[in-house]
Amino acid sequence: MNELQPIHPGMSIGILGGGQLGRMLALAAAELGLDCHIYCPDRNSPAFAVAARHTIASYEDEEALAAFADSVSVVTFEFENVPAASAHFLAARTPVFPNPGALEISQDRLAEKKLMAELGIPTAPYAKIGTLADIHSGLLETGRPAVLKTRRFGYDGKGQAIVREGDDPASAWRAIGEQPAILETKVPFTQEISIVLGRGRDGQIRAYDLAQNEHHDGILKLSVVPANVPDKIAAEATRIGEEIAAALEFVGVLAVEMFLLGDEVHPRLLVNEIAPRVHNSGHWTQDGCHVSQFEQHIRAVAGWPLGDPTRHSNVAMTNLIGEEAGTWAALVAEPDAKLHLYGKSEVRSGRKMGHVNRLRKRE
Amino acid sequence: MNELQPIHPGMSIGILGGGQLGRMLALAAAELGLDCHIYCPDRNSPAFAVAARHTIASYEDEEALAAFADSVSVVTFEFENVPAASAHFLAARTPVFPNPGALEISQDRLAEKKLMAELGIPTAPYAKIGTLADIHSGLLETGRPAVLKTRRFGYDGKGQAIVREGDDPASAWRAIGEQPAILETKVPFTQEISIVLGRGRDGQIRAYDLAQNEHHDGILKLSVVPANVPDKIAAEATRIGEEIAAALEFVGVLAVEMFLLGDEVHPRLLVNEIAPRVHNSGHWTQDGCHVSQFEQHIRAVAGWPLGDPTRHSNVAMTNLIGEEAGTWAALVAEPDAKLHLYGKSEVRSGRKMGHVNRLRKRE
Repeated sequence: MNELQPIHPGMSIGILGGGQLGRMLALAAAELGLDCHIYCPDRNSPAFAVAARHTIASYEDEEALAAFADSVSVVTFEFENVPAASAHFLAARTPVFPNPGALEISQDRLAEKKLMAELGIPTAPYAKIGTLADIHSGLLETGRPAVLKTRRFGYDGKGQAIVREGDDPASAWRAIGEQPAILETKVPFTQEISIVLGRGRDGQIRAYDLAQNEHHDGILKLSVVPANVPDKIAAEATRIGEEIAAALEFVGVLAVEMFLLGDEVHPRLLVNEIAPRVHNSGHWTQDGCHVSQFEQHIRAVAGWPLGDPTRHSNVAMTNLIGEEAGTWAALVAEPDAKLHLYGKSEVRSGRKMGHVNRLRKRE
Repeated sequence: MNELQPIHPGMSIGILGGGQLGRMLALAAAELGLDCHIYCPDRNSPAFAVAARHTIASYEDEEALAAFADSVSVVTFEFENVPAASAHFLAARTPVFPNPGALEISQDRLAEKKLMAELGIPTAPYAKIGTLADIHSGLLETGRPAVLKTRRFGYDGKGQAIVREGDDPASAWRAIGEQPAILETKVPFTQEISIVLGRGRDGQIRAYDLAQNEHHDGILKLSVVPANVPDKIAAEATRIGEEIAAALEFVGVLAVEMFLLGDEVHPRLLVNEIAPRVHNSGHWTQDGCHVSQFEQHIRAVAGWPLGDPTRHSNVAMTNLIGEEAGTWAALVAEPDAKLHLYGKSEVRSGRKMGHVNRLRKRE
C-alpha cells in the first residue's frame, strides 16, 4: 500500500457508518478541506447532516457498495460490525483503511484473544463457547463469577451475561441468544483504562495520553485524563497499544481497553478489547489536544503525516446518555465545559446523545 | 426580543451566505447539535457540503426567502452585503440576528462614520462623495494621500483607489466605478489591529484578545495574538468595540478594525471599519481559545449564554490565498500548525482558500 498517493484536499473520504463517530469524523475532514460520503442503512443517521453526500443502503448491497467505492478516494469506517465480506469487496475497488483483516480480528472476541496470545499480551482467562456444555466445562477454567460474551456484535454491554456463584449457566446462555461466545473470568480490576493511538500509512505511531474510564450499566460514563496510574503502567499500556497496532498493520485510530489489577506494588494490565476505530474514551482529545482523534484518523487514512497528540489540558469527558442531553442549557453555561451534541432527533434510554468535556489547565 | 425562547438542539439555524465563514459557522453549530440551512445564490458554495439543507437562490427572491424563513428558527448571516430589504423581509417572519438595522449601518461606510461621530469614537477625517467635484473639494479636507472607498460592497481592498500627490482625482473616480463613496485621509498608522467580540441577546459582551493584522494588496495576510500594543491601548480598543456593539444592539459576533497611530508616548486609535459578523482576524480563536468566534456567534444568535473567550495559546494566523493553498502538505507536517481549508474547488488569484493557525504555549 506504500505506493498509494495521499488524498488531496477536495477529494472524498467514504465512511461506513453514520453515527456520532462518523459525524465527528466528517466534521474533522471538513476542517481539512476534505469531503465525506457517508454510507449507512439508517435514514436518520446523524452524520448525514454534515457530509457532502450520503448513501442509504444495506452493508450487504453490492451494487450500492460498488457505487460508493467509485465515488470516493479512500474508505474507512466508524463502525466495526460491517460484514468483513463487504470490507473485502470494497478493498478490491478502492483503498480501505484500516485493512479488512484488522476489522475481521477486532469484530470477533475469539480472534482478538488469539492475537493477544500470539503477541504474549495478557488477557483474562477464557474459554471458547459453542454450546451450553462448553459453558459448564469452561467455568472450570474461568471460575466464577465469569462473563459470557457473544463473539460478535457486542457493544455498550449488549450481548453479555454474568454467571455468578449459584447461577444456572443455561440462563446466561439464553440471555445472549445462544450464539457463539467466549466465557471469561470476571477479573477484580481496580481501574479501567484505555489507550487511543493513531498509526499512519507509513507505520508511524502517535499515542494519546491514557484515559481512565468508568462504565455504568455497561456504557462508558466518564473518561478522565490523565489517568491516575503509575508512569510505568502508562508506558506499558502505550507499548501494548503500539504492539497491537503494528501487528494488525493498522492504519487509522485504534483504541485498546484494559483492566488494571493487583496492588501498587504489583500492578498488572490485562487487555479487555480492541476497537478498530475512533473511540468514545478518546473524545476528550477534541478539547484537550490541538489534534483530536478524529483529525488524527482522517490524517492517517488520507496518507498525511500524523498530528501532535500532546495534551494541553486536563479533561474529564462525561457522556450524555438518553435524557441527560436535556441538561444542555446548564452545560453551555458552565465556564470550562465544552458541549458536543450529536444531532440525534430521538432520545432513547441508553442512547449516546452527546458528551461534555470539562477542562482544566494542565498543571 | 427578550421574550424570545432560546433555540434548542435539533432546531435549525438559517445562514445567509455560503462562503468559508458560513462553512465554519455550520461546523460550530453541528458540534452543538444544531442543524444549518445555508442560503446562497452560488451553487458552488463551500458551506453547502457541511449543512443539512441549502437553498440556491438570489438574495432578492422573496418566495425563496419566505420558504427559508419558514424552515428555520433563527436567521443570521456570514455576509453583510445582503440587501437590507431582504433582511427586513426575513425579520418580519422569523428572528434575525444581528438585527437588520445593524446590518444597514455596517454595509454603508458613510453610516458607519456617522455612528462613530455620534459615539465620539475617532475615525480618519473624511468627506462624502457623490460626484467628481466632491472629490476635489473633499481633498481640501482630507489632504493627500487620501483613499476613495465605495460606500457599499467593498471587501478585501476592492472598491478602493488612492489619490496621491499629483494624481488626477478623475482616475480614482473611474477606478471605483463612479459610485457613491467616501474620501478618507490615508492615515500614517503604525499598526492595524482588530477587536472581535460576542454580544448575547441579553446584552452580555465577551471580547477576545486583540489581534494585530497585516494586509497585503488589501487582503488580510496575517493576524498575530497577542497584539504588540500597550495594555492601555488594548483596553481602549476593547471599550470601543463594546460601545459600538451596545449602540447597534448587536447580537452575535462583531469585529472592529482599527488603526494605531502616534508614538509610544501618545498612541491614538482610529476606527477603520466594522464587520457585523465573524471575521477573518478572529480565525485564531479556533485553536487559541476553547470557544471559537464561530461557536460564540452561534451561541449568541441561539440565545445561549456566551462562552469563555480566554486565550490559552499565542497564535499566528496566516491566510492561504490562491495558489498558497498548494502548500497544504508542508503545513500538515508542521508540529504546531493547524490547517483549515475551505473546500473551494476552484483556485483563483486573491481567493481565500484556507488559513493556518500556528500555536505557541502562552507564556
